[in-house]
Amino acid sequence: MNPKINFTPGPSQLYFTVEDHVRTAFRDGIPSISHRSKQYESIYKKAVDGLRALLGLPANYHVLFTGSANEIWERVIQNLVEEKSLHYVNGSFSKRFFEIAQLLNKKPEKIEASMGQGFNISDIVHPGIELVGITHNETSSGVSVPLEFIYSLREQYPDALLAVDAVSSLPYPDFDYSKIDSAFFSVQKGFGLPAGLGVWLVNDKCIAKAEQLLSKGISIGSYHSIPSLYTHAVKNQNPETPNVLGIYLLAQVVEDMVRRGITAIRKETEYKAALLYQALESHGTLKPFVQDKAFQSKTVIVADCGDHTENITKLLQSKGMQPGDGYGSFKKSQLRFANFPTHSKEQYELLVDTLAG
Amino acid sequence: MNPKINFTPGPSQLYFTVEDHVRTAFRDGIPSISHRSKQYESIYKKAVDGLRALLGLPANYHVLFTGSANEIWERVIQNLVEEKSLHYVNGSFSKRFFEIAQLLNKKPEKIEASMGQGFNISDIVHPGIELVGITHNETSSGVSVPLEFIYSLREQYPDALLAVDAVSSLPYPDFDYSKIDSAFFSVQKGFGLPAGLGVWLVNDKCIAKAEQLLSKGISIGSYHSIPSLYTHAVKNQNPETPNVLGIYLLAQVVEDMVRRGITAIRKETEYKAALLYQALESHGTLKPFVQDKAFQSKTVIVADCGDHTENITKLLQSKGMQPGDGYGSFKKSQLRFANFPTHSKEQYELLVDTLAG
Repeated sequence: MNPKINFTPGPSQLYFTVEDHVRTAFRDGIPSISHRSKQYESIYKKAVDGLRALLGLPANYHVLFTGSANEIWERVIQNLVEEKSLHYVNGSFSKRFFEIAQLLNKKPEKIEASMGQGFNISDIVHPGIELVGITHNETSSGVSVPLEFIYSLREQYPDALLAVDAVSSLPYPDFDYSKIDSAFFSVQKGFGLPAGLGVWLVNDKCIAKAEQLLSKGISIGSYHSIPSLYTHAVKNQNPETPNVLGIYLLAQVVEDMVRRGITAIRKETEYKAALLYQALESHGTLKPFVQDKAFQSKTVIVADCGDHTENITKLLQSKGMQPGDGYGSFKKSQLRFANFPTHSKEQYELLVDTLAG
Repeated sequence: MNPKINFTPGPSQLYFTVEDHVRTAFRDGIPSISHRSKQYESIYKKAVDGLRALLGLPANYHVLFTGSANEIWERVIQNLVEEKSLHYVNGSFSKRFFEIAQLLNKKPEKIEASMGQGFNISDIVHPGIELVGITHNETSSGVSVPLEFIYSLREQYPDALLAVDAVSSLPYPDFDYSKIDSAFFSVQKGFGLPAGLGVWLVNDKCIAKAEQLLSKGISIGSYHSIPSLYTHAVKNQNPETPNVLGIYLLAQVVEDMVRRGITAIRKETEYKAALLYQALESHGTLKPFVQDKAFQSKTVIVADCGDHTENITKLLQSKGMQPGDGYGSFKKSQLRFANFPTHSKEQYELLVDTLAG
């Protein structure tokens, strides 16, 4: 009911069907149903089956729910690392994943690139790595790591698990899930849902690793350890009273996306991204922050606006559009534009027409 | 919009104002606002200030938000116990609190009573206890521990922190917060809100203890450690993208409760509890599961129904009322009735009239 077109990269503009689903949820008493009821189990199953269909998850993958993607960073380290993880760090969120491993008293290592930069395949292999963590899409800088680079890490670290932070990219990327071991996201970005739910995809190797740590007497947490989450997941349940409304809304929106077709969603994402990058390239004063096209994110597009940041913001606001601020120290010189499935072609056309002024 | 009167003890019937607040939230675009914006900070502050007023929290208490009360069990142990906690166990939920300490590789001890029983003050003092955990209201059995008993633990364990699980009792109990150190609840019970948010009240001693563990090199978690939660709380923010809609709805419902008056809410709770216990005492075939009046919960009332469980359930359902099942092995012989602020006197009168049939 909010008239503004919201391009902030998270929490995002709601997926356009969410309000209808919320009305139905309250009409049907969903927020009060027991999380141990058959009715809840069928909602849970619908969300999981929908995600399997939308993302093309293989049978050896399992869908687990947490309170946030922030929690998943912690649970990944707790459940999948005895001592040493390796983190590719090129912005605030990938850095945070590394820091969480430090806070959990592991001995993480990192490979760093500057804000706005991607990574090149390296010949140097760090020894003793149990898990490689990489952020597919840095929400802070608009850098996206090519899928081929992610898959190359599996070849470099064949004995490590490969965990992909896909917080601000899914459902756009067409991951080959056989070449990674885990991916995760929070629902308030690409899925356009109210915040308060993290979705964690893990394969059988992750379950085995968590059980191996447990058998060594290492604490892997309690209610949200992988074995606890998995034991409940096979019954379409959660260990705790979960965000029932959030899981219901996810099930509904994923159904809408499956109906629309993931191929159409991906093509439209690419079309809208091309429109905006083209507008930024040809603009007199703006330019894409990420210069190397190989690393330009399709889902979070960052514009260098310099001294024009405030003016551009006002211009867009005057047309009912809200850009996202630049992240951290770039707050006054950059703007960020989410390009999620809820953003229509017409909204992107209005955006680029207004920028072209 | 669901016509049924829902007496299940959690998720509970929604507080009667929630649906209106949800409509307003979506109209105002609350689910899409940035959790780093001034607008969000004012929502956060309203929730915290409201809880301070409603519960009468002293200045040395702080309000922290998590994903669930289940998470708070884990964070209590992780942040406040180096080695040894003591747990009073008299049902499924108090037992779970103890087990979580075991899963986190601490060395918890326990004092047990049977399902349906309370505790007596004991002369035996367990040595080396850093934290005493007690469940004020056992949702599984309908046993409530008298406040005087809780306060007596502070005298027995003057050097330990005292953490009270008040999941299914708050806002009813009028705790003397100077005699405990922490209390916590989840919003889908007494506050009548959609599940997906835990509220953790901690005093300055809890902050100091967490910092002490941290300075010893012990991991107290990452984004949801007490120091991380507290550092953000003083700025009216969360470490992660939180359940923004949940915190907004909490702020609104707490405001409604403050307006109604906590004294009126407490008196009404006692009136409704007296009605139902009276009906059970005088009933031909039903009786209260908790026989000792000193331990009878005011907020979760459990009836022994024996072979009549199914018939009573059908009778209530025929009048539009949904009782809660008995917990675990009592599923076929007991019914549970939540007596929360959202349950009106008229609903309770209909309940007892129907039972008296």
